[in-house]
Amino acid sequence: MAEQTAVTAPDDTMDPMYRWACDLFPICRSLTGEGVRQTLAYLTGLIPGLVTHAVPSGTKVFDWLVPDEWNIRDAYVADESGNRVIDFKRHNLHVVGYSTPVDQWLTLDELNQHLHSLPEQPTAIPYVTSYYQRRWGFCLSHEERIKLKPGRYRAHIDADLGPGVMNYGELILPGASSQEIFLSTYICHPSMANNELSGPVVTAALARWLARQPNRRYTYRIVFVPETIGSIVYIHRNLDWLKANTAAGFVVNCIGDERAYSFLPSRLGGTLADRVAQHVLSHAADDFIHYSFLDRGSDERQYCSPGVDLPMVSIMRSKYGAYPEYHTSLDDLSMISQAGLAGGFNVLKSCLEVLEANLTYRACAPCEPQLGKYGLYPTLSTKESFHHTKALKNFLAYADGNHDLLAIADKIGVTAQNCMAIAENLHRAGLISVSA
Amino acid sequence: MAEQTAVTAPDDTMDPMYRWACDLFPICRSLTGEGVRQTLAYLTGLIPGLVTHAVPSGTKVFDWLVPDEWNIRDAYVADESGNRVIDFKRHNLHVVGYSTPVDQWLTLDELNQHLHSLPEQPTAIPYVTSYYQRRWGFCLSHEERIKLKPGRYRAHIDADLGPGVMNYGELILPGASSQEIFLSTYICHPSMANNELSGPVVTAALARWLARQPNRRYTYRIVFVPETIGSIVYIHRNLDWLKANTAAGFVVNCIGDERAYSFLPSRLGGTLADRVAQHVLSHAADDFIHYSFLDRGSDERQYCSPGVDLPMVSIMRSKYGAYPEYHTSLDDLSMISQAGLAGGFNVLKSCLEVLEANLTYRACAPCEPQLGKYGLYPTLSTKESFHHTKALKNFLAYADGNHDLLAIADKIGVTAQNCMAIAENLHRAGLISVSA
Amino acid sequence: MAEQTAVTAPDDTMDPMYRWACDLFPICRSLTGEGVRQTLAYLTGLIPGLVTHAVPSGTKVFDWLVPDEWNIRDAYVADESGNRVIDFKRHNLHVVGYSTPVDQWLTLDELNQHLHSLPEQPTAIPYVTSYYQRRWGFCLSHEERIKLKPGRYRAHIDADLGPGVMNYGELILPGASSQEIFLSTYICHPSMANNELSGPVVTAALARWLARQPNRRYTYRIVFVPETIGSIVYIHRNLDWLKANTAAGFVVNCIGDERAYSFLPSRLGGTLADRVAQHVLSHAADDFIHYSFLDRGSDERQYCSPGVDLPMVSIMRSKYGAYPEYHTSLDDLSMISQAGLAGGFNVLKSCLEVLEANLTYRACAPCEPQLGKYGLYPTLSTKESFHHTKALKNFLAYADGNHDLLAIADKIGVTAQNCMAIAENLHRAGLISVSA
Repeated sequence: MAEQTAVTAPDDTMDPMYRWACDLFPICRSLTGEGVRQTLAYLTGLIPGLVTHAVPSGTKVFDWLVPDEWNIRDAYVADESGNRVIDFKRHNLHVVGYSTPVDQWLTLDELNQHLHSLPEQPTAIPYVTSYYQRRWGFCLSHEERIKLKPGRYRAHIDADLGPGVMNYGELILPGASSQEIFLSTYICHPSMANNELSGPVVTAALARWLARQPNRRYTYRIVFVPETIGSIVYIHRNLDWLKANTAAGFVVNCIGDERAYSFLPSRLGGTLADRVAQHVLSHAADDFIHYSFLDRGSDERQYCSPGVDLPMVSIMRSKYGAYPEYHTSLDDLSMISQAGLAGGFNVLKSCLEVLEANLTYRACAPCEPQLGKYGLYPTLSTKESFHHTKALKNFLAYADGNHDLLAIADKIGVTAQNCMAIAENLHRAGLISVSA
Repeated sequence: MAEQTAVTAPDDTMDPMYRWACDLFPICRSLTGEGVRQTLAYLTGLIPGLVTHAVPSGTKVFDWLVPDEWNIRDAYVADESGNRVIDFKRHNLHVVGYSTPVDQWLTLDELNQHLHSLPEQPTAIPYVTSYYQRRWGFCLSHEERIKLKPGRYRAHIDADLGPGVMNYGELILPGASSQEIFLSTYICHPSMANNELSGPVVTAALARWLARQPNRRYTYRIVFVPETIGSIVYIHRNLDWLKANTAAGFVVNCIGDERAYSFLPSRLGGTLADRVAQHVLSHAADDFIHYSFLDRGSDERQYCSPGVDLPMVSIMRSKYGAYPEYHTSLDDLSMISQAGLAGGFNVLKSCLEVLEANLTYRACAPCEPQLGKYGLYPTLSTKESFHHTKALKNFLAYADGNHDLLAIADKIGVTAQNCMAIAENLHRAGLISVSA
Repeated sequence: MAEQTAVTAPDDTMDPMYRWACDLFPICRSLTGEGVRQTLAYLTGLIPGLVTHAVPSGTKVFDWLVPDEWNIRDAYVADESGNRVIDFKRHNLHVVGYSTPVDQWLTLDELNQHLHSLPEQPTAIPYVTSYYQRRWGFCLSHEERIKLKPGRYRAHIDADLGPGVMNYGELILPGASSQEIFLSTYICHPSMANNELSGPVVTAALARWLARQPNRRYTYRIVFVPETIGSIVYIHRNLDWLKANTAAGFVVNCIGDERAYSFLPSRLGGTLADRVAQHVLSHAADDFIHYSFLDRGSDERQYCSPGVDLPMVSIMRSKYGAYPEYHTSLDDLSMISQAGLAGGFNVLKSCLEVLEANLTYRACAPCEPQLGKYGLYPTLSTKESFHHTKALKNFLAYADGNHDLLAIADKIGVTAQNCMAIAENLHRAGLISVSA
């Protein structure tokens, strides 16, 4: 599988997130199978405490059944001379995900019924799967496809598709409160970088950073699941708990490139997750794309569905479906970068920092305090005094027990980070207290 | 009364609504009298089950008394040679509505005190009434008026104005629910087409269409009343019932021309009638005029008044007061058309269809269902899968027991008609149920 | 103190407000002391019933202590020849407010540590105070400052700063209701006209006008306090009462010039005071500046603080901090005018008139009344009838017991004054009643 790893050679000087992505890139992941387990094993090496769960094929989860496990060893299409004109060993996108085993000779016409290519992106190998309908097929670039000459071809797929398990990873980082911040990312795509590896590597970095924070107010729940069926299984197993305890959540994916940031709100909007994401993005990026929930396409489809309705949003860079490389071999390691991953990491980390600090304060006495006593205001009143420490006075004006820190930040037009510093000063001076 | 019927000869190939308008055009209607009864008799021929009610003159209804009954046989102004210079037989707008009987000779100056014309619309005979103050008068085009030479004129009005009854028509079409959709139109104007005959003929067509619908969810209440006093009488007689049972209502008038559509909201807006009307109009017309309730002028003045507050709106084409032909002889049968009436009919019919279908659904299980199982989603997942059946998935996302079909349609940006088809598919597949 | 009185000589033909400002201009006010008492004595001459209160220095009020009393007799900087190069007797802004007594010789370098000037406004003497940190200092125009030659200077301030009292004035004008309208203005600035004398003279005029109104619905509470510490003291003494009884309030200041009107809302907006102020300003001025509460700078900082939260706003002309003359000697009697003061007075008076009339009405019967019976509508119905007395009919449409007069005025797009006349007509005709 040399081809799909070649773009950037991992080395020790690289940013860990990008290096992790390089390490994980060659693995042939799907909803189930060895690829997922290899990926979880690698992540467990990065994240102590990450637990791998296994769910048997056929388990009923709401309207779904956990599918059979798929493992593939080899796959190719060879011509009459035995030349592999399509070869899974060159790129794992060449085979349709969940292809059934096959070994037969076909005419080019017959073979074409099983081929997928993109005439409008002739150099790209498309990513195609058929999880819930038994099929086999191959994907190739349109350039290669049109070179195929009439004749007979051998289609060979050496794969197992049968009862087994579906795996996912789960990490709980306890905090002072049983209220949780939930991070979910997915690990079911073969060699593609922005969608998907940016998701698990940024999530892994967040998990490692969170593990180092000594005084977490929130408990953190972090899962690495196969997309769709994985989140459905996870919800099925944890629905009551998640509904009762999730304060805010983030679906982490498509977060490694250097294009614009994207925001996808929760189903009805206005949750704590929506508020913090919009606040942080509006201060972090000159502009960001504000999608509608109607544009969703990842696990928020499940987490925000009626009857689940977790307060979850997605912060992305180039959103799935909205960049040309999406779901093709062009979404390779050149699509993401150290800077792209770091930007995404920092925005999500800021969200978590603000959530930790997002208390509701109440001024300890009516009227403004005499700020000069505390060194918080000049003692000499001049024409300009009026403008001094305006943010601090405005913070106090809305520290009324009804506005949390985020609400104050939005109201007074400063960053939550600024408000955190102000709150610390005011709290130290005994001028505000945390509202019950 | 030949003049006012001449514009378009009714024939069997004409659209029934336009033909009905031609038939009804010559009748000299007013608040009361034979003209109203003739009109109701004609409508009863079209609408089996339409019941004519009679309310005695002098009946007290809220702040009003039902006025005396007015019947006119002839009216003219003749010059000294006996030439009829103004003649009711040529156009029934020539006499001021509710004119008292008179037969006297006057100078031109004296006569002028009783004449009405429109200098700015010199060819138009204005429509003038004096229902609650005893007067007599004549209306004529300004062109004709300025031809009148000094001299003596005989004013003759052969009319009765005395105790009698006020009539109105009422039809109840029962449905599964006692909740009602209420349609109100008026039948008190002499020969004018857009305001008023478009109203009763479109309403008659809706009544006939509704009568043919086998499974009405709502009960339909349809009234043909003299404007203002008629709706006040109707409210006085039925207030508690109307307040308890009206789900949505429409004042039907000025709905026969081919100009822009107009929408007049309820007093406070936001009722079911407002929602369906705005939804249907926004999809039916590239643009429509959204009036304020401050611009009201017809029976919504009563139906939406404080203490009544029915959820009623008005969908019109050229609104009363907003087109130059309004309340003149220029509002003749050339002002309306088959296409104009059909457009108005269709918009109102769509509103009724959407109301019938406007249930609140709830997804039967948390998370998205596996749509592929039901043939509602492709089983092969490709780069484009993401966009498939987006409306269906978006419908499901808001089928949460809190959004009715109209709310979902507005939220996901598709027509209610599309949502009706989607809901049918999902309901048949057992994926949604009607919320209690 | 001739210099600061010279701009306009008071005479009997002048508008009283402007004359009062001229009379009060020369007095050297500060937070405490003789200047405040002289000012209150003058105001008591204008406003019978105004009571002067005294609060001892050192009294604890929330986070503050009432400061010592400051009285100044003379202050100057003299050169070695005895020439007074800075002289308090020429302008009372020359000395830093609350300067401690001093009499010492200094070099120019040493003196400069105690001087304040404005290089960007070289002709203006700045206004500087140091209420809560013991200091002394002088203020002068930058033009004068740069003329000072190296050498020795005598700084002399003949002042007392020690225990005494802080004074404020209070007037209660009882009305039928215990609910109150609250007016607060301040009396602590030396010779400056827009900020501050416009405030107390407009407030005095309002008090005199209110005293002449025979049938006040509201009780009026009017205070003249030193800014900040005065309002804090007043709140401390009256908090429960103010919170329970204040229907609306106005901080009156910066209301004497002829520039644009300014509006500063309450902390959360939407109070009765916000509503009336915005309504009146929107009809009184072609445009007005709508500030944010974040731009506040006067006693609304206290009255609207969390824990106090009175429904108070500020209507100003040129707002403090937003005009170049602010807090300098340029804010002299040429800054304000008879017309400017009268405009401010009239806007506030209109607010009070509207508040008095701001009842909630309810139509006495369902449906429109027969307005013609009461002479409120033409009995002849023509093409134009539709437009007659539209405001009256619209008023009736919202006289539903849920909209007060101000809400109706805003809804129907007419002035509250027009609505007051309409309400009077309708009430006289027995068509509306006051809603409980």
